[in-house]
Amino acid sequence: MDETSIINENTDVFEKKITLIERNLQEITINDKEIIRKIIRKRNLKIYWGTAITGKPHIGYFLPILKIKDFVEAECEVTILFADIHGFLDNLKAPIELIENRYHYYEKIIKIMLMSVGCDINKIRFVKGSDYQKNSDYVFDLYKLCSYTTERDCKRAGSDVVKQRDNVLLSSLIYPNMQALDEEYLKVDAQFGGEDQRKIFMHAKTFLPKLGYKKRIHLMNPMMPGLNSDKMSSSDELSKIDLLDTEQQINKKINKCFCEEGNLQSGVLHVFEFVIFHYYTSISINKKSYTSIEDVKKDFEMKLIHPKDLKLACSNYINKMVTPIRNEMLKDIDMIKKAYNN
Amino acid sequence: MDETSIINENTDVFEKKITLIERNLQEITINDKEIIRKIIRKRNLKIYWGTAITGKPHIGYFLPILKIKDFVEAECEVTILFADIHGFLDNLKAPIELIENRYHYYEKIIKIMLMSVGCDINKIRFVKGSDYQKNSDYVFDLYKLCSYTTERDCKRAGSDVVKQRDNVLLSSLIYPNMQALDEEYLKVDAQFGGEDQRKIFMHAKTFLPKLGYKKRIHLMNPMMPGLNSDKMSSSDELSKIDLLDTEQQINKKINKCFCEEGNLQSGVLHVFEFVIFHYYTSISINKKSYTSIEDVKKDFEMKLIHPKDLKLACSNYINKMVTPIRNEMLKDIDMIKKAYNN
Repeated sequence: MDETSIINENTDVFEKKITLIERNLQEITINDKEIIRKIIRKRNLKIYWGTAITGKPHIGYFLPILKIKDFVEAECEVTILFADIHGFLDNLKAPIELIENRYHYYEKIIKIMLMSVGCDINKIRFVKGSDYQKNSDYVFDLYKLCSYTTERDCKRAGSDVVKQRDNVLLSSLIYPNMQALDEEYLKVDAQFGGEDQRKIFMHAKTFLPKLGYKKRIHLMNPMMPGLNSDKMSSSDELSKIDLLDTEQQINKKINKCFCEEGNLQSGVLHVFEFVIFHYYTSISINKKSYTSIEDVKKDFEMKLIHPKDLKLACSNYINKMVTPIRNEMLKDIDMIKKAYNN
Repeated sequence: MDETSIINENTDVFEKKITLIERNLQEITINDKEIIRKIIRKRNLKIYWGTAITGKPHIGYFLPILKIKDFVEAECEVTILFADIHGFLDNLKAPIELIENRYHYYEKIIKIMLMSVGCDINKIRFVKGSDYQKNSDYVFDLYKLCSYTTERDCKRAGSDVVKQRDNVLLSSLIYPNMQALDEEYLKVDAQFGGEDQRKIFMHAKTFLPKLGYKKRIHLMNPMMPGLNSDKMSSSDELSKIDLLDTEQQINKKINKCFCEEGNLQSGVLHVFEFVIFHYYTSISINKKSYTSIEDVKKDFEMKLIHPKDLKLACSNYINKMVTPIRNEMLKDIDMIKKAYNN
């Protein structure tokens, strides 16, 4: 190869990586985009995604999982944080006595989800929060950070993530500070999360430098409407689709979803947009092929797709994605029972 | 010795210990009194006093120091906690970068004060907060405690101790939770402190049991009026008497104190009541001997003691107490400079 073709090939690789990293994201600041490019020119990007060990992962978890697959394919050094302590810091969403068992559940299901979408989990570093969040360096930094941040700073930061109430628990105020410190202690360049993490990310950008640490890059995924509990309408069954639900349960839940002929305001379309089309490049509804959500929407709006057919296709694809995960998980019923005390 | 005399002797020792432990205290609940008696009948009482490494110890520190002498003489197992982390958690009263040097200052001056009042420091265990407050067990308990306590709980608890402001620092809310945990981690039966600690003590009594730990005994010293900054009148110079002040500076400050002929509302009388009479069993004012503050007050009210003589005697006794401390401290000017960055 001559020099020009090497440069061309390098440029191709570079562009491919950037595309993989940035596609389907909801937000990334211009400044952060530039920093990513600078890093990628020199080495692989180090990025982390944290999942708080709270309730039970539902189909919305496919959004970050599919994005993580992109990062791995872009040769990023991906870290997944199982934030067990955060699980109870957020209003004891996970009871303290169950947290260890529930961590095992999360670890298993997240790994299975990743494998099920074809992601090589050997390329990912998995970290458990409590393995370093009780270390003395971390804790001393936390004490310091709490001396620089006010209750108002921390309330604002957590307002879209941590359960809100009038007289907040102290733990919910510590939560964003720890998430900021995690960026430093996981030695990453960037943190990835849903758009709901925005205020925590900005909090981290503001306060990490006060401890002498550099502010990190933040990559934000869109939030799938109907999957964030705050935005969930009572008729919306999507966020209730558990990854261990049977085919019948999934069909029933999708069937219950609001989906009016010609009306684009439907959670079912959101599932196509944010989950199914992020995984399948081409799908079929009532025997017609589609390669983009726009085409599906167009046909649905023009009433060329009937809600019943949309739901049927949705159920089929979701079941195709969920079934291998459920089957793998159900091999260890005991672990599941322990995690949820039932 | 026959059995009766052994019992009598034991009863005497018991009563002497109880008297030493309880004398001059402002408050101790009836329930706690009973628990103390139960313990003392079986073994020595384990008690801790914590001093946050904040500004600079002044003559008010003689109050706890003299009380600690009582505890040691009552054969209590006394622990003194140098709460270095608390020093910056309270609104960065001690700058984080100076905390280690300032800890050395506190350690030295507290030990010298104890020795100067005739307390055997070999019978006291000295602990530095950061030596265990960054340990994983402690921290995990702190995370848990923060999941059980609200911002309101912690604000209320700290309201007489931690500097108050509108938008509080998170650290000032963590402060009372750590002080509660300290009781458990220092493995004591009781915590001793000024009456200003009352709300933190009640907070500890309420929340330690939620972690499965037993609630502790609390012994509260009176607050010397004019020495607590909140209650300090602008004319009051007492709280400004530093333990390193020269004789001239001390004389000048005491001389500036409000002290009107026949008027019992004088900080100078408070110094006699809370410091001098806790140390000297008999004192002399203008060549007349006194063995109690009541007698001094009576004579002062009847204008048999002139303010000038009261101040003169006060200066003499305080200088007698402070001079050996100052002399010992000034042997290490470098340490002092480092502690206060001057």
